Amino acid sequence: MTDIAMIRAAAGRLAGHARVTPLLHAPLLDAVAGRRIFVKAECLQLTGSFKFRGGWSAISAMEPALREKGVMAYSSGNHAQGVALAAARHGIPAVILMPSDAPQVKIANTRAYGAEVILYDRNHEDRDTLGARLTAERGLTLVKPFDDPQVIAGQGTVGLELAEQARSFDIEQADVIVCCGGGGLSSGISLSLEAETPSFTVRTAEPEGFDDMARSLRTGRIERNPASSGSICDAILTPAPGSLTFPIVSRLCGPGLTATDDEALHAMALAFTHLRIVLEPGGAIALAAALFRDDLSDTVICTASGGNVDPATFRMALDRYGG
Amino acid sequence: MTDIAMIRAAAGRLAGHARVTPLLHAPLLDAVAGRRIFVKAECLQLTGSFKFRGGWSAISAMEPALREKGVMAYSSGNHAQGVALAAARHGIPAVILMPSDAPQVKIANTRAYGAEVILYDRNHEDRDTLGARLTAERGLTLVKPFDDPQVIAGQGTVGLELAEQARSFDIEQADVIVCCGGGGLSSGISLSLEAETPSFTVRTAEPEGFDDMARSLRTGRIERNPASSGSICDAILTPAPGSLTFPIVSRLCGPGLTATDDEALHAMALAFTHLRIVLEPGGAIALAAALFRDDLSDTVICTASGGNVDPATFRMALDRYGG
Repeated sequence: MTDIAMIRAAAGRLAGHARVTPLLHAPLLDAVAGRRIFVKAECLQLTGSFKFRGGWSAISAMEPALREKGVMAYSSGNHAQGVALAAARHGIPAVILMPSDAPQVKIANTRAYGAEVILYDRNHEDRDTLGARLTAERGLTLVKPFDDPQVIAGQGTVGLELAEQARSFDIEQADVIVCCGGGGLSSGISLSLEAETPSFTVRTAEPEGFDDMARSLRTGRIERNPASSGSICDAILTPAPGSLTFPIVSRLCGPGLTATDDEALHAMALAFTHLRIVLEPGGAIALAAALFRDDLSDTVICTASGGNVDPATFRMALDRYGG
Repeated sequence: MTDIAMIRAAAGRLAGHARVTPLLHAPLLDAVAGRRIFVKAECLQLTGSFKFRGGWSAISAMEPALREKGVMAYSSGNHAQGVALAAARHGIPAVILMPSDAPQVKIANTRAYGAEVILYDRNHEDRDTLGARLTAERGLTLVKPFDDPQVIAGQGTVGLELAEQARSFDIEQADVIVCCGGGGLSSGISLSLEAETPSFTVRTAEPEGFDDMARSLRTGRIERNPASSGSICDAILTPAPGSLTFPIVSRLCGPGLTATDDEALHAMALAFTHLRIVLEPGGAIALAAALFRDDLSDTVICTASGGNVDPATFRMALDRYGG
């Protein structure tokens, strides 16, 4: 199980390989929000999301003889790209199973990072069966997107940086809002802040209608989303909290927050204008909650977890809220 | 005259007030460019451009009794916002003279940073006469946009950071391309790199048709632009190199580069996709030169000097080159 020592060890392995992302703020954004907002800009991480940290952490922690046989991941998005680049930089093969209807640009990018992409028909082929055959045949190791102790440890390094940066701004009390899919980033950051800045409260943020973590936090057991699509926040539409992540989030986080797709677009436009960063909808959901929810502390730190957005979606944000 | 000691002193005064901006890179951008590209992301600086550094440097260096009377600047853009916020954070008045036809958002932002904005009719009023009367009546000190030793020193702090960050990437040889208007940033960075990384070559980048610095470097004397408008790179359309900046640039920089407005839009779209940062056209001209000019070293470091772009212009970049 992930603990702070594992996160610190992961930080050591990531040093010089992942980017220390800046904690941004802007006086005019604070004026819009009516509170002080800081943004941990993981959209500036290599591959455009925090997922590179978890991929690197997991691969760098593997036993070398096993590692050199290669890794596999299932993903149509950010995890695919994070694992692909982390594997390439370790000089090992990566096989990424992607649905054949995934966006062409994501398939192309994953290949460009050096991975072998295997497409499958999600209506007629079973991903898990296909994946199990590949791992067995080739000796590949599966890197899960969130429910893996070393992946959680990698994502937790965001929290170590955030705590240090918060100290440099003399922030003593804050709500820390984290974009939440399966809970890898939320659980990792929670563990880091428990050790580093116990006065901070971590809050998860999810798209309205896909609030499996918020509902699970209310009932105390893992709840599932009724649907698997129907929000533009594609990066964080996981079916349910993970069996490793949920106990951590449940122990350490406050009540879950939600925001609408439209609020995510609004947050993207405000981040464009005031922070000059590019966010994808799922990566903007924490900022949306910070801007549009009440009952938050005067200082809020949000993760901006990813920036891999297609131009059409970004144009939608500018058209509606770019002024 | 600005020297490396003044730049180091300015860095000391800026510490904890200006942001240390990241040096970004992306494997897929390198693949597009065919060379290794690093981007010093000053669009992430407070107020969205490096101009905050020069404003802070000049104001913080003033004699306190004079400073408390306040400062004045002429600008319709980034310098206005940089001086306005630097003055507000020093608790002193700032008066910004802006043409009445400046974009409303820039007027609103400058006011939001706490400055008194005085609008003038650029067809019927003489800005210099108006400014001279205001400085005399109120005891204000003019903060020039580039031709001032402490402003150059402030912009030079970009170079100190860039040199240290380049060392962390083990970059031993590089062309450093700088977005160039009046030459404040180019001269400041040149002085820093002369001291810190003399193996680097600084190159200025300007919009095609507004290449006053490139032509001045060729002839050895200050040449003027034939027009004052006609490019979307509004932030860097100054009439001519400064009398303080040109001797420094002339002594330390290689031949000037240019790029077209369309190449700047293309660079903005690539920065959106691969770096997830928002650039304005003038802030993307160095990246455009790095991407589309030949005869550059295998490793190029570009300044991305600003990100204050209106949504319509950004949409134009995405429409043409967002894929």
